Amino acid sequence: MNPPPIPPIRGVVETILYTDDLGRATDFYREVLGLVPMKTDGDRFQAFDTGAGRVLLIFKRGGTLVPQPVPTGGMIPPHDGHGPLHIAFAIDKPDYEAWCARLRSRQIEIESETHWERGGRSVYFRDPDRHLVELVTPGIWPNY
Amino acid sequence: MNPPPIPPIRGVVETILYTDDLGRATDFYREVLGLVPMKTDGDRFQAFDTGAGRVLLIFKRGGTLVPQPVPTGGMIPPHDGHGPLHIAFAIDKPDYEAWCARLRSRQIEIESETHWERGGRSVYFRDPDRHLVELVTPGIWPNY
Repeated sequence: MNPPPIPPIRGVVETILYTDDLGRATDFYREVLGLVPMKTDGDRFQAFDTGAGRVLLIFKRGGTLVPQPVPTGGMIPPHDGHGPLHIAFAIDKPDYEAWCARLRSRQIEIESETHWERGGRSVYFRDPDRHLVELVTPGIWPNY
Repeated sequence: MNPPPIPPIRGVVETILYTDDLGRATDFYREVLGLVPMKTDGDRFQAFDTGAGRVLLIFKRGGTLVPQPVPTGGMIPPHDGHGPLHIAFAIDKPDYEAWCARLRSRQIEIESETHWERGGRSVYFRDPDRHLVELVTPGIWPNY
């Protein structure tokens, strides 16, 4: 008998970063990138709607080292992270230069701009925790 | 004069994990989750198509500490990560039990199953680097 087929994965839905200062990180993603805050406990985490049905979760570093009970059933197991992580957000191609101008106007240092073989472009900068943030137009990967 | 509007973000397009053993991590995401390998340099990174036009990048820990030139222009600035990070993949609601059965059949320990207020469900387990992996049905967030 053949094993059952693997059910499909529909993309990454939650991407997680860790911060030393939740308020500062929240301000950055809301005010610089324009992400829409969805949910917070005011202390330990902030969830953002990043568009396209995808979620950015920012956790206070060290705030997720013990299981977190979920009131409606179960618990979230421990996780945590260090180091300057990396995340890339999708932007529309016609908005590339406007994004670069926006970063410059807010005195955010652009660390790099890249051209990709498939025609896409990326701009790289740091969030307040030194995570490497990339804004990327389509034309990078076979599926994007 | 009003400042120009913030151009839209279209979701997170690249989510990044770090590994101590790229071959082992690649096997896990390909064979257990069924993700489609897209690109690798065989040594330092593996890119996966996770569906929905979203990308998982797995980097060898310590392999991204210096800028990486991009042949077609520019460079990728340094990043790196430690700790058991967390990632969540979208699955269809009717596939929830099949996923749990699949994990059990491969002797992957389920650390938790949760019920969410909006009706969604999550199952949590570890990848070989102890990252906390979640498979989650719609019904969790206002936008998912």
